[in-house]
Amino acid sequence: MSTHTEPPMTETHRPIIGVFDSGFGGLTVLRALLSTIHGAHFLYIGDTARLPYGAKSRATVSRYAVESARLLESRGAQLLVIACNTATALALDDIRAAVSVPVVGVIEPGAQATAAAIRSLLPTPYSLLPEVLILATAATVQSHAYHAACAALGLNATEKACPLLVPLVEEGWTNHPVTREVIRIYLREAFAECTPRGVLLGCTHYPLIHSAIEHEVRALDSHAVVVDSAQATADAVSRTLASLPIAAQLTSTPSTFECLATDSVEKFQRLGSHFLNQPIPSVTLLDLGG
Amino acid sequence: MSTHTEPPMTETHRPIIGVFDSGFGGLTVLRALLSTIHGAHFLYIGDTARLPYGAKSRATVSRYAVESARLLESRGAQLLVIACNTATALALDDIRAAVSVPVVGVIEPGAQATAAAIRSLLPTPYSLLPEVLILATAATVQSHAYHAACAALGLNATEKACPLLVPLVEEGWTNHPVTREVIRIYLREAFAECTPRGVLLGCTHYPLIHSAIEHEVRALDSHAVVVDSAQATADAVSRTLASLPIAAQLTSTPSTFECLATDSVEKFQRLGSHFLNQPIPSVTLLDLGG
Repeated sequence: MSTHTEPPMTETHRPIIGVFDSGFGGLTVLRALLSTIHGAHFLYIGDTARLPYGAKSRATVSRYAVESARLLESRGAQLLVIACNTATALALDDIRAAVSVPVVGVIEPGAQATAAAIRSLLPTPYSLLPEVLILATAATVQSHAYHAACAALGLNATEKACPLLVPLVEEGWTNHPVTREVIRIYLREAFAECTPRGVLLGCTHYPLIHSAIEHEVRALDSHAVVVDSAQATADAVSRTLASLPIAAQLTSTPSTFECLATDSVEKFQRLGSHFLNQPIPSVTLLDLGG
Repeated sequence: MSTHTEPPMTETHRPIIGVFDSGFGGLTVLRALLSTIHGAHFLYIGDTARLPYGAKSRATVSRYAVESARLLESRGAQLLVIACNTATALALDDIRAAVSVPVVGVIEPGAQATAAAIRSLLPTPYSLLPEVLILATAATVQSHAYHAACAALGLNATEKACPLLVPLVEEGWTNHPVTREVIRIYLREAFAECTPRGVLLGCTHYPLIHSAIEHEVRALDSHAVVVDSAQATADAVSRTLASLPIAAQLTSTPSTFECLATDSVEKFQRLGSHFLNQPIPSVTLLDLGG
């Protein structure tokens, strides 16, 4: 595992994959990427000085996300992963227009994985449009990006903003009565509007409360499948990578990674290790001028 | 009430007072300022694109706060109010060094008001150092600025980080069982460490849950006086203003105000009116380059 700012010189030809998030949540995606893709080098930026993006406007989120995407490209990234639902929802087109490398977001892979999971459980042929519930931040919900992605896959999505879940996860209350009560309130409000066959965790923080959400879904007598988009995104990145010339440089050795953050590197190491589920040996402070 | 970007030309000589916060919370201070000071014009900046400051590092908060302070001075502010506990705790000295007008923060006035309230309730002479509990964001607590301000006034402060209270207020759950339960948990943890005579609300969001906090303090069998720093700060600004030459330009007409925000002006109008307790007729979008 490398933690240098530059990719390891002894492995200069490893494909470099840039991963971007507003903070720590995208580390759940990096975790899935590290276990799915071998022989690559991941360069992760957490824009912690300006997090969270979830309550900010499209223009602001787009400006921030494009800056990070350009920086990743300038540091050699040959493929970009927007490991942030809000940035994918509000800025994917702007990011694709701003860089010249392929860009993978988290929303389409998440919607596709949910559609696949639901269809595998439904009788065939199934005539109704299956309902799916998206739990996400306010900004992601307001963008209706998940609704559009699900509609394209023949799913009828209800989007529910859950603004308290990120702060609860960041407080470390991942298995706490208050968090379960908040999840229960949000789910009850959502289930009053729909009867979903699938519940998609549309925020990269939510994998840390996956089991609490699943528990409350069951408590509401629902058999809905609960899907998080981290693994789905890693699979999509793997497929995109396979189609690029740099795939020839992949080896079977474990992938390496390095982390850059725009705010306190100590906090990034401490909090981030919970999301990545492994220690983060060092973090480089990055000034994006914000 | 004026909402123009420039102060009203018919009242050119009104003293201009700049008020700065990371978002909406400082509007509880503006509210107290408007009811305390007449004949002035208030220029409020909410740095909503980069909020919240409460979880960010000293260097980042200082950089953001100095930018806003300089902008307020360049727009004619003759006195600055840092209506943000985190920015006062982490950046007051940097702000004072960066501008040439007087600067009032929220921490010293809040500590002074708490000391006065406690002493008015204590037998004289009282030999022990009275204990006070500060509820605040993580960054404010880590700075220990309240501990220092209280120590200078002969109070022994215990500082308690309450990171979930701002998101709960912003979710609108100001009178909600979950918010009361979270307050109860934080207070119980704090009361295990101290037996306070006063509880100081060290965050400008907390006046909106003042009565819920007071209720839970009483439920713990405490007679501690609960103080918020908004009115204390307005009184301190009034005293500072009285000592400046521009005081001669004050009239008895109601003060006017205008708001600038770095993110969505619609959201600022909508959420901000709860904090200001009156409609915000218009908001100007401001680009601080972040």
